[in-house]
Amino acid sequence: MRNIKLVVEYDGTDFVGWQSQANGRSVQDEISKVLRQVLQESVTLIGAGRTDAGVHARGQVANFRTATTLETSAILNALNGLLPEDICVHSAGEVSEDFHARYDARERMYRYYIASRPGAVNRRFQWFVKFPLNVSVMNNVGAQIMGEHDFTSFCKAEADVDHHRCTVSISEWRQMEDLIVYEIKANRFLHGMVRALVGTMVDIGRGFTPAPAFAEILNARDRTKAGMAAPSLGLFLEEVTY
Amino acid sequence: MRNIKLVVEYDGTDFVGWQSQANGRSVQDEISKVLRQVLQESVTLIGAGRTDAGVHARGQVANFRTATTLETSAILNALNGLLPEDICVHSAGEVSEDFHARYDARERMYRYYIASRPGAVNRRFQWFVKFPLNVSVMNNVGAQIMGEHDFTSFCKAEADVDHHRCTVSISEWRQMEDLIVYEIKANRFLHGMVRALVGTMVDIGRGFTPAPAFAEILNARDRTKAGMAAPSLGLFLEEVTY
Repeated sequence: MRNIKLVVEYDGTDFVGWQSQANGRSVQDEISKVLRQVLQESVTLIGAGRTDAGVHARGQVANFRTATTLETSAILNALNGLLPEDICVHSAGEVSEDFHARYDARERMYRYYIASRPGAVNRRFQWFVKFPLNVSVMNNVGAQIMGEHDFTSFCKAEADVDHHRCTVSISEWRQMEDLIVYEIKANRFLHGMVRALVGTMVDIGRGFTPAPAFAEILNARDRTKAGMAAPSLGLFLEEVTY
Repeated sequence: MRNIKLVVEYDGTDFVGWQSQANGRSVQDEISKVLRQVLQESVTLIGAGRTDAGVHARGQVANFRTATTLETSAILNALNGLLPEDICVHSAGEVSEDFHARYDARERMYRYYIASRPGAVNRRFQWFVKFPLNVSVMNNVGAQIMGEHDFTSFCKAEADVDHHRCTVSISEWRQMEDLIVYEIKANRFLHGMVRALVGTMVDIGRGFTPAPAFAEILNARDRTKAGMAAPSLGLFLEEVTY
């Protein structure tokens, strides 16, 4: 069996998320459906990250095993010709038979986009925050999660994880004109983690939560201590590294 | 009568354009409708540039005369509260009684965005060109329209203009990773001018039209000599200066 790796971009607005669900339109189902049509066989599509409803991706990675003899360039063109316009495949390449998009990922990088003024063009891709934000204070707070930490305070309850430790290698806030961008890279992410981190740090940036409280929240290992989750529309899975 | 100036952003995807038309949803009508509701009077809304169907704006300027005693900040908030999500007003300010958004504009600046790879997130705001483009050659050609020229070759037939001369102060192509951006600033623009220029220069950038032909096309003063118009989705009215 050949093993094919895809790099996928999607506008998450009209999806229930990456993962197939009983009800609603998932990215995984849409791609699987088109693959079945192109390959004339059913495949299991494994994604690197299970993005939630409304979360976007510019660099989601997925893989599937297939008996097809089609060239990867033909698979790529067929996918892009048949997929709905809110999904686009950037590349399709053959990888070693044991490659697993989820388990082999060393790090994932997400960005969260905040608009400091309301907008029309980017309304589906940026969270408009009407309060002035102190980006410098947010960046100092963000630096506190560098390295390995227990992120229980920043995740939803999950049945299938045995621990909540993640190793963060980038955690940075920066301002670019009317746009404020948070970049976070880690070996793994827990359910709802980036949105809970962003929501909590925005509360600090606007002066609602004092900055020293952040360390207490992190150490508490208690989700109720953190701020509200930031809305999904500002979040992008940008890159997965192997 | 007070005279109020608005700076307006819109996602042009679902509009027939700025200008009110017998059929279809126009930006001018949507804003006028909300103004009537807010001001309790009918106003005439004058726009600086009549963007075509599907063209976006981040810095369209408009003005209207009103007898209202409402503060401009109240008008701004009411507009943004009541307008559909694909229109957003960035500012509302009182200007001198004789200010006219269209006639007083000294220059307008447009940008055109081309994606060099297909995308899902920005599919409504960038034209995907599948051919490799020589941006350096396009930039050299673009420089030839600096200063005053007759742009008859690059406009649709129009009944209400008495000449086709425009004075161009910026005409630049630049590449930023997967994005190619054309910026053009001029004292006036003819109907379809930016899209015809972009379409023609893209034909040159991909090697379909030889670069020396550009001067001939410009000098011919004949629309049939130029290339196809680039699609409206990549075009943004960015700024109007007074």
